[in-house]
Amino acid sequence: MKHLPIGPLYYEFSRHHQPRLRIAPGETLVVASEDALSGQIRTNADRRDKEAMPYSNPLTGPIWIEGAAPGDSLAVTIHQIRPTIGQCATRTADPKQLCEWLGSDCPHGTHVCPIRDDLIYWSDTITIPYTPMLGCLGTAPDWGSPTTAPAGPHGGNMDLIETCPGNTILLPVFVPGGLLSLGDAHAAMGHGELSATGLEMPAETTLTVNLRKGQTIPGPRIESPSEIMAVASGAPMERSLAQAFAYLILWMESEFGWDRWRAYDLLTHVAKISVGYYGIGTVAAKIERRYLNGTLS
Amino acid sequence: MKHLPIGPLYYEFSRHHQPRLRIAPGETLVVASEDALSGQIRTNADRRDKEAMPYSNPLTGPIWIEGAAPGDSLAVTIHQIRPTIGQCATRTADPKQLCEWLGSDCPHGTHVCPIRDDLIYWSDTITIPYTPMLGCLGTAPDWGSPTTAPAGPHGGNMDLIETCPGNTILLPVFVPGGLLSLGDAHAAMGHGELSATGLEMPAETTLTVNLRKGQTIPGPRIESPSEIMAVASGAPMERSLAQAFAYLILWMESEFGWDRWRAYDLLTHVAKISVGYYGIGTVAAKIERRYLNGTLS
Amino acid sequence: MKHLPIGPLYYEFSRHHQPRLRIAPGETLVVASEDALSGQIRTNADRRDKEAMPYSNPLTGPIWIEGAAPGDSLAVTIHQIRPTIGQCATRTADPKQLCEWLGSDCPHGTHVCPIRDDLIYWSDTITIPYTPMLGCLGTAPDWGSPTTAPAGPHGGNMDLIETCPGNTILLPVFVPGGLLSLGDAHAAMGHGELSATGLEMPAETTLTVNLRKGQTIPGPRIESPSEIMAVASGAPMERSLAQAFAYLILWMESEFGWDRWRAYDLLTHVAKISVGYYGIGTVAAKIERRYLNGTLS
Amino acid sequence: MKHLPIGPLYYEFSRHHQPRLRIAPGETLVVASEDALSGQIRTNADRRDKEAMPYSNPLTGPIWIEGAAPGDSLAVTIHQIRPTIGQCATRTADPKQLCEWLGSDCPHGTHVCPIRDDLIYWSDTITIPYTPMLGCLGTAPDWGSPTTAPAGPHGGNMDLIETCPGNTILLPVFVPGGLLSLGDAHAAMGHGELSATGLEMPAETTLTVNLRKGQTIPGPRIESPSEIMAVASGAPMERSLAQAFAYLILWMESEFGWDRWRAYDLLTHVAKISVGYYGIGTVAAKIERRYLNGTLS
Repeated sequence: MKHLPIGPLYYEFSRHHQPRLRIAPGETLVVASEDALSGQIRTNADRRDKEAMPYSNPLTGPIWIEGAAPGDSLAVTIHQIRPTIGQCATRTADPKQLCEWLGSDCPHGTHVCPIRDDLIYWSDTITIPYTPMLGCLGTAPDWGSPTTAPAGPHGGNMDLIETCPGNTILLPVFVPGGLLSLGDAHAAMGHGELSATGLEMPAETTLTVNLRKGQTIPGPRIESPSEIMAVASGAPMERSLAQAFAYLILWMESEFGWDRWRAYDLLTHVAKISVGYYGIGTVAAKIERRYLNGTLS
Repeated sequence: MKHLPIGPLYYEFSRHHQPRLRIAPGETLVVASEDALSGQIRTNADRRDKEAMPYSNPLTGPIWIEGAAPGDSLAVTIHQIRPTIGQCATRTADPKQLCEWLGSDCPHGTHVCPIRDDLIYWSDTITIPYTPMLGCLGTAPDWGSPTTAPAGPHGGNMDLIETCPGNTILLPVFVPGGLLSLGDAHAAMGHGELSATGLEMPAETTLTVNLRKGQTIPGPRIESPSEIMAVASGAPMERSLAQAFAYLILWMESEFGWDRWRAYDLLTHVAKISVGYYGIGTVAAKIERRYLNGTLS
Repeated sequence: MKHLPIGPLYYEFSRHHQPRLRIAPGETLVVASEDALSGQIRTNADRRDKEAMPYSNPLTGPIWIEGAAPGDSLAVTIHQIRPTIGQCATRTADPKQLCEWLGSDCPHGTHVCPIRDDLIYWSDTITIPYTPMLGCLGTAPDWGSPTTAPAGPHGGNMDLIETCPGNTILLPVFVPGGLLSLGDAHAAMGHGELSATGLEMPAETTLTVNLRKGQTIPGPRIESPSEIMAVASGAPMERSLAQAFAYLILWMESEFGWDRWRAYDLLTHVAKISVGYYGIGTVAAKIERRYLNGTLS
Repeated sequence: MKHLPIGPLYYEFSRHHQPRLRIAPGETLVVASEDALSGQIRTNADRRDKEAMPYSNPLTGPIWIEGAAPGDSLAVTIHQIRPTIGQCATRTADPKQLCEWLGSDCPHGTHVCPIRDDLIYWSDTITIPYTPMLGCLGTAPDWGSPTTAPAGPHGGNMDLIETCPGNTILLPVFVPGGLLSLGDAHAAMGHGELSATGLEMPAETTLTVNLRKGQTIPGPRIESPSEIMAVASGAPMERSLAQAFAYLILWMESEFGWDRWRAYDLLTHVAKISVGYYGIGTVAAKIERRYLNGTLS
């Protein structure tokens, strides 16, 4: 099994980066990634130094998938996300949109939490279940090189808790080889990622990358054993939500044979929504698989 | 146990309505409500007639709670929501914000679904678990009389799936007696209530109304056995989310002794979000109770 | 000429208020109004006391227009807005959405400015041209009683600088008599009304109210000698803008004979936008009259 | 005077592009640019072919300014924008956010308009004054390579009518040489650029580029003879507006000696707002220069 170590830290999903690894479709590999803070915070005494590194969310990659061509999709199945140094770190800072109600005097603090036995030790008395996910996962666009701040049709900084072990993330291929990159692993994350800084950790992710030749998709999709989800990003969030639902309906239509307006009706009653970092507006609109194959009356 | 039948259908949360019932704090009662479509759709052949009734979401109420005064809160515990005619109805119409992706040719259709044995028969092959909730629940403001379309500090058309049996909804009291009203029961509802029309049903709701004297809250809150949730409404949704999180933090501070910026940190990692009708932008920000009483390091 | 003095201060556009004056269509009258601060700030030493009066923007009215019936429009032509005490007042307070960039330590101050010779003396060295407008102008809805905080199809707290002498504001009639109210005069206002408090003044407004029988409009419109404008309100502002443009296109279609998609093309190149209080999201989309009657190729 | 002809069409503001021209600060030059439609529409029979060219808004550049270093600003004064083929072209297509009100059956049409004697001949009977501007003007970021679709701190696709002859646009320098590019000239544009396609034309722009060493700015600014303006971009538009106002206040503070909260007060009464393409949410918040130097009471 191939292993891609942390190399140069890239902060863009860019076709200008040379592939660091070439794999065949269907290969399983392990990818190591630095934390979103570029490793600047390893103890509670450390501080985020934006002079030394102004960007966040360094990526490992890109990975070239043999045969991947524009118009295809990658299907990235995550098997495991392992903390590599037994801890994660977070920080508080400006409460941004919250300051209207809370003021702006949030102390800039850091906070390192050990991870042991599938628990995150957030304080002496509070533990959080270890439920890891990848904040950043994406391909390289052919138009523009997005930073690791936003999310978009290429994936990017989606910050969805469903980018996790057991799920398959589908991503459009825009350039030859696809150029997959990942990073920004969190030991756990709440909906909305309120402070914009999760429980950030260096990690090793075990994943399989399959290629779906000729399956053109308008943006990221997620398949779990029990659900399918369409993802859209951007503000205002009501617009992202509408877009995610529209993409989910079109998916139900094209792949599961649904009439689009019947799907629209059903989703009204059974859909679930997951919200990524609320400052970016990534949302996933979901439906349980058990509804998909119902014969329609 | 008192029983409030369907009476005049009110479409506003208004202090100008005479109370139809007076109860003591702590009383349990049953309230019958018409469906959101004002009962116009009982068969698949029926159509929503907006000439005959332009408004949606008729309320039953208002209920006067003895001793309730401005600055207090009502604590409304829902025990049961029972379908009174064994069926619910929905309709599809203009896809509004979705039409950018799907076009605007959605057929205007209606759809009546039987409810039996805790299942909603949505089609010949698809059943949806009966998981009822109240779309509308609120008190009467002292400034303005909101219609049953929006949601706000008084509650209103929140369309949250957490306004359901087993949970307690806290609402501010703005006028003497509180003037509680409710309606718009759904047999089930997805996050976002995509088409704006759920599985609407006439219902009987069994609830207990307690009075929390002197507990002044800025907007609706929901207590479940396992979680607490703060609610905010309005567009853009990222602003409602920020407001709901700010209110949840202030709640953790005032009632559970948390430092607000520690709460801000924790919520980043463990919060959940529930989204009501996305066209209105009601959201609930939640935290599990088990985190609330952790001694802080 | 009839004169309606300041009477009870109403803070809602409500059909529950008794008409204070009845006029015939086409009558010209003078309406006195208190300032948006309910007269609490007459000197720099005064402070806004929200205990004594929590609401803003008191209205004078309602005025019953003989013959006005649901489905008609009122056409309110403003001739003059005169300051009645030779001064206006403003205040600074929480910078709300700005605090993300500026912090939240804005001093709560008040500021009274003399008005003389068509100039507002804002400071020893800065004068602002006296360019008065009405922040609030509206009819009473038949569904709900909006406060004087929001704007909507009934008009309301639109805070547009085009609600000024020389212009005619069209408003839908929802209830018999129309029930017109007005207030919140500003001696001048910038686009966006940044701090939410303009140069507030008690005023006397001279206006003529005409009735357009059978002209049903979906929301406020403004006619100036050189332009027509459609108004929409609410967040997110990009949605209000889309709605205002759609309403302007429909107006060009119905009244000026335009093909809607030709209008859509032309507006792309020549429209202007005016922004009311940005926290509410009222916008006006405008086109110059000289374009309206061009024969189409 | 140097002349930069149309060369390779770039669709990104990218530090990966080789400079095509090097100039000294203070130089005046002429830059030719292709139209936003990549020249695909020269007659009414032409159609936009997105297969052949999926991107919009090709740029000419980048231009290296000697001595420009990260932390500096460029000051780009536009003297003239001349149509190079005596015509401009526009097209109508999906009405996107308008389709909620207007439906989605907009004919996909093109429309070529002659330009003569400072008039644009939009139809047989309608002429529009020739009031040219540049839709795209920007520097190359050091983090990410934005496409020519969005706008941001680097400038980009701002689509502001104030990017016009007589004005000076200030842009941050992020990489050595600044790497200035421009394109997307419009013969005229309305606020909001409703259909997203203006009166697009190939053009020759005469401009002077000055360098303001050490003047670090957070985003684009515009100086006209009578006004100064701060620019911000993104959705929701109320947030961009807040950001633009905050940046204008900070500008008044740092360069004109204003107390920030006094500036906040004044802007409430005298600011103007200009809206770029409403789908992107670029706005400019403005104040007249005559207010800036008033001694403060």
